[in-house]
Amino acid sequence: MAGGIGSRFWPLSRTACPKQFLDILGVGRTFIQQTWDRFAKIFLPENIFIVTGEDYKELVMLQIPEIPENNILLEPLRRNTAPCIAYACYKIMASNPNANIVVSPSDHYIGDYLGFQDTILKGLDFTKNSNALLTIGITPTRPETGYGYIQVDLSNEDSLSTQTKIMKVKTFTEKPELEMAKVFLESKEFYWNSGIFIWNVKTIVLAFQQLLPDIDTMFNQGMDIYNTPEENEFINKIYPECNSISIDYGIMENHNNVYVIQAKFPWSDLGTWGSLYENSKHDKNENVIAGKNVFVKNSNGCIIRNGDSKIMVVEGLKDFIVAESDEIILIVPKADEQNIKNIVNEVKISLGDEYV
Amino acid sequence: MAGGIGSRFWPLSRTACPKQFLDILGVGRTFIQQTWDRFAKIFLPENIFIVTGEDYKELVMLQIPEIPENNILLEPLRRNTAPCIAYACYKIMASNPNANIVVSPSDHYIGDYLGFQDTILKGLDFTKNSNALLTIGITPTRPETGYGYIQVDLSNEDSLSTQTKIMKVKTFTEKPELEMAKVFLESKEFYWNSGIFIWNVKTIVLAFQQLLPDIDTMFNQGMDIYNTPEENEFINKIYPECNSISIDYGIMENHNNVYVIQAKFPWSDLGTWGSLYENSKHDKNENVIAGKNVFVKNSNGCIIRNGDSKIMVVEGLKDFIVAESDEIILIVPKADEQNIKNIVNEVKISLGDEYV
Repeated sequence: MAGGIGSRFWPLSRTACPKQFLDILGVGRTFIQQTWDRFAKIFLPENIFIVTGEDYKELVMLQIPEIPENNILLEPLRRNTAPCIAYACYKIMASNPNANIVVSPSDHYIGDYLGFQDTILKGLDFTKNSNALLTIGITPTRPETGYGYIQVDLSNEDSLSTQTKIMKVKTFTEKPELEMAKVFLESKEFYWNSGIFIWNVKTIVLAFQQLLPDIDTMFNQGMDIYNTPEENEFINKIYPECNSISIDYGIMENHNNVYVIQAKFPWSDLGTWGSLYENSKHDKNENVIAGKNVFVKNSNGCIIRNGDSKIMVVEGLKDFIVAESDEIILIVPKADEQNIKNIVNEVKISLGDEYV
Repeated sequence: MAGGIGSRFWPLSRTACPKQFLDILGVGRTFIQQTWDRFAKIFLPENIFIVTGEDYKELVMLQIPEIPENNILLEPLRRNTAPCIAYACYKIMASNPNANIVVSPSDHYIGDYLGFQDTILKGLDFTKNSNALLTIGITPTRPETGYGYIQVDLSNEDSLSTQTKIMKVKTFTEKPELEMAKVFLESKEFYWNSGIFIWNVKTIVLAFQQLLPDIDTMFNQGMDIYNTPEENEFINKIYPECNSISIDYGIMENHNNVYVIQAKFPWSDLGTWGSLYENSKHDKNENVIAGKNVFVKNSNGCIIRNGDSKIMVVEGLKDFIVAESDEIILIVPKADEQNIKNIVNEVKISLGDEYV
């Protein structure tokens, strides 16, 4: 899934180049490329599909030249994750009704390739011949209020035969308040919802039939059209008719056979500068510095990202974000990063869409 | 005098475009233009001379199109203020031995045109038929350690016939330590040395003869050459032979007939971002903001200068300098601005002369 826009990494992320296509910290690969790298170690390129917006097709082809063009699925407009996943799964169903599928965002941080691979393979093994929906759960390490939580049933835990915990889901919860998050953390019954799902195609299609029948009806009409030259036209016709609804809200929270597999890897959705900072290498002054020609003095706890064209001199900052990209310089305390979207809005009102 | 380089307003000031040619706060006129404007209200353009470096001739002609080309005096290299002033005064002597002269830096802040004009005219009246050297003294308002001080003789004060105080100088002092500056301030006997001088040309030439005879000998050789096509060649020949010495150290401190005229205008040498801040209009959050497309939140006491090409978003800064110019972004606490020259040096070592 690579269709998101999102202004939280503005000025680096823009509508024209959202986060998944960025290498914010200059590690050499963009987020979607890193995601591709992870999956390309497990699956053949012809079995990897990217769903994205029409405007991003060129970016995908540029950044992932290995992907067959038929595997780039283009959404004519954004309709949240349920239609996006339906599109991919029904299309896969049309060519392989026995497919076993991993669904993943393209812009997350995964700290351990091998642990990731192990979790994915164990998960696929679990769903291969099962009518369960499986989601990867992250063991919480702090009372994070920015993630959804999943409560699991621990009563049968001892009966599991493998070292990898796979647990029945009791409830999905929305992002909690801090007090509630603390209770979740202490209970040991809750996992963070990573948004990475595993299931076989028959199970998910059946789930759409039962829980989102409108979406099922629409995408089911395309069974003879997917993977033909008419696919695009068909999608462009039905997509605007789809409700905009998330897979969590539309399917996962209402399905009676959902399991969590415990992740064996460090994870973050990197949805914030703060989480990007946390998951990056710090220098001896606890700064995360990316880009060339950055001169930093008496500063600590900062995340500093210089573009290609500038010299940046920073002195005396503590816990700040300093980011330069093209025409824009942002200087904001890490603690105030939630204000960035207001700032983006103000810039938009003042200067127009060009800069957002 | 417009030959200075100076890195204190880096990244705005560069060797290729020093402070006097900048409009740092975007008021519409550069410092040298503002200086020109002040003097052009008092003198005819043909009586105003600008001494600058060869490299800056084009900048002067571009910024002061009104000046006759013969009035732009080009130093082939920098030799401090004594040779600079000798050049101008001997050249003026050659065409008008009765000239009465004001010598002024080109990059100072003068807060009141009319008060300035009044002081200058009274000073010229004092030196017209006198063999005194006159310097404009600024009544100190704080124990500033960045300026030189002049102690005056107040014993004859009551006998002065005009409202404008003109006092005999007792001593010139270098930049004092803070404790000494406090004593100076309290004594009421001390003025800041503005570096603006008034004298008639015969008096200053005589002073060079007596106190800097080497310089006198050299510039005196040119009496038949100034204001001819050979002037440049002559200057290029003698200038490298001149000692590099300031007019204060070489003449003013050793002359026995120096007077101070009390300035009737607010003044600053604007030698620091801090003094630039102090002498600029503050917004309601005590920020000084120059340039377009600057978005400032929760910040105060800052001086923010955006270049032409960028959008700048600043949040949560207190008492900082934020300056963007061409390829360089500077973020530094106002209190640490003395570090800028070290930073410039580091940039120079790391990236070369291009950026300094």
